[in-house]
Amino acid sequence: MRIIIFGGAGFLGKKLALELLRREKISLGGKPAKPITKLLLFDKTKAYGLPPDPRLEILEGDICDPSALQAVLEKPTDAVFHLAAIVSGEAEKDFELGMRVNLHATLNLLELCRTLQQNPVLVFASSCAVFGGELSETIYDSTRPTPQSSYGTQKAMTDLLINDYSRRGFIDGRALRLPTIAIRPGKPNAATSSFVSSIIREPLAGKSANCPVAPETNVWILSPNKVTENFVHALELSSGDLGTNRVINLPGITTSVAEMVHQLGEIAGEEATKLVDWQPDAFIQSIVLTWPPHFVTQRAMDLGFKKDASVAEIIQSHIQEELT
Amino acid sequence: MRIIIFGGAGFLGKKLALELLRREKISLGGKPAKPITKLLLFDKTKAYGLPPDPRLEILEGDICDPSALQAVLEKPTDAVFHLAAIVSGEAEKDFELGMRVNLHATLNLLELCRTLQQNPVLVFASSCAVFGGELSETIYDSTRPTPQSSYGTQKAMTDLLINDYSRRGFIDGRALRLPTIAIRPGKPNAATSSFVSSIIREPLAGKSANCPVAPETNVWILSPNKVTENFVHALELSSGDLGTNRVINLPGITTSVAEMVHQLGEIAGEEATKLVDWQPDAFIQSIVLTWPPHFVTQRAMDLGFKKDASVAEIIQSHIQEELT
Repeated sequence: MRIIIFGGAGFLGKKLALELLRREKISLGGKPAKPITKLLLFDKTKAYGLPPDPRLEILEGDICDPSALQAVLEKPTDAVFHLAAIVSGEAEKDFELGMRVNLHATLNLLELCRTLQQNPVLVFASSCAVFGGELSETIYDSTRPTPQSSYGTQKAMTDLLINDYSRRGFIDGRALRLPTIAIRPGKPNAATSSFVSSIIREPLAGKSANCPVAPETNVWILSPNKVTENFVHALELSSGDLGTNRVINLPGITTSVAEMVHQLGEIAGEEATKLVDWQPDAFIQSIVLTWPPHFVTQRAMDLGFKKDASVAEIIQSHIQEELT
Repeated sequence: MRIIIFGGAGFLGKKLALELLRREKISLGGKPAKPITKLLLFDKTKAYGLPPDPRLEILEGDICDPSALQAVLEKPTDAVFHLAAIVSGEAEKDFELGMRVNLHATLNLLELCRTLQQNPVLVFASSCAVFGGELSETIYDSTRPTPQSSYGTQKAMTDLLINDYSRRGFIDGRALRLPTIAIRPGKPNAATSSFVSSIIREPLAGKSANCPVAPETNVWILSPNKVTENFVHALELSSGDLGTNRVINLPGITTSVAEMVHQLGEIAGEEATKLVDWQPDAFIQSIVLTWPPHFVTQRAMDLGFKKDASVAEIIQSHIQEELT
């Protein structure tokens, strides 16, 4: 079984690769489990830091280059994870770049799956940024996407494509709408939600971090561990269980920024919380404050997707995995 | 003021052109009314049968040809009607053609509006085919699109783009989700809803027509007169009245196919109804039966869009305009 991860050099891509390699066998769309013989990580930079493994292939390439995409997709491919994206803040600032990567490259990827007749199980990293506007609203599985950013628009458009390509049998798709992932390791990035990780990660490392939104701001979060587990679960779910709607709002937990910093203090001491600067940023607020923080994700729970138990657990597991 | 109608040779495009030319002045997005100096009808075939008018320009071209599109959009353009499309049945049978015209040409059209900085008021003919699946459901303004056809998917994707391009100020967009238009003049076409017109139009002309769905099948319809009126109204509405959501489910009336044929009999006599053959067609049913027939279009009514009074009125106005 050959699996490709687009965006395989990102931290989620690498974490997912490790999880897949850890498994002897994996089920694809509910079929009997088979061993992974090849796992290709495709990204604009080479994925580094992974332990050597004969099954692992690492490739540097541009997802916007049709010939590069064709070269990797024309070999028999059983499953595709599509995590490659221009993040929210960057897609808002550079409209053309966001459209090129988040929409046009994805269109081309799906077209290649169709024309090359690979019909892979395809797991797409969509986003809860497809919702926006009415802050007071609780998001249900039936809530219509009302994106207030170009990133959210591009994700919502892809969700529709995933359903249509799946309905026609070109792919066996699953689009997971990710909550804000916290706590991301590494450095702050251009995602407008980057601060949600920074305000915990940086103080734990003895560094200061800016919080660009008010303490009472609520966020909807999921840990790297749980999203990785959910990616693999999405791959394994049978298409019969999914039916015609291949788009799933992943579960998460709602918490306030203040509560996150409070839990930081409980775990790392009061001094750590003093490393958080509260400097409002109008651009970030203009996007983040349109993301609704309250979700009821009944369908995902019924399908067996997982969420974290608490903010404390999320912080503890970050410390355990990244700082020890 | 220069206005372009893409899809200007279709019957709705020509009807809209006549209505625009009839007006001395027209308001654009709520601004003071001005005279139309140029009205360009662009389509893959030349629009014929329109009375000569110095303001009217008729152009044959391929909307999928970027240079043809650029040539018409690089002249100062105040308003664009985008009615060009591959209809539902054809887009379902020829996936590539549907994607090329309904999605990629539209993407290119919007990109040209942006890069050429025309920022026109743009009225897009979307469709109630963005909804589908649960037949019993009533569609509200807040109902999420769940297209069960590639045509509906392409329309729903464009709706999202219209909102994002408008939010960013690249266009001042209005996407109208059209009910099934009845009674279309001319010949049956490849729209899966074509029969809704045929079962009235053909018998009125003494010809037989096939009804591929059961008599009790409900449909959601709007007349050519009312949709034309609504197109012009959409052009005139101020962007302030529309807010961030530029997508509008147009009003219509729900009726059964049996009721339509009954009204045909009332108006044209029992003999006319005998010209309707009831031959089920699995392909047409597989699409039409996913289109929900019950809508509550409160927002459109509040914004001043119009629907027909009755099936009888629709048939009478068809007779008056097309057969007398």
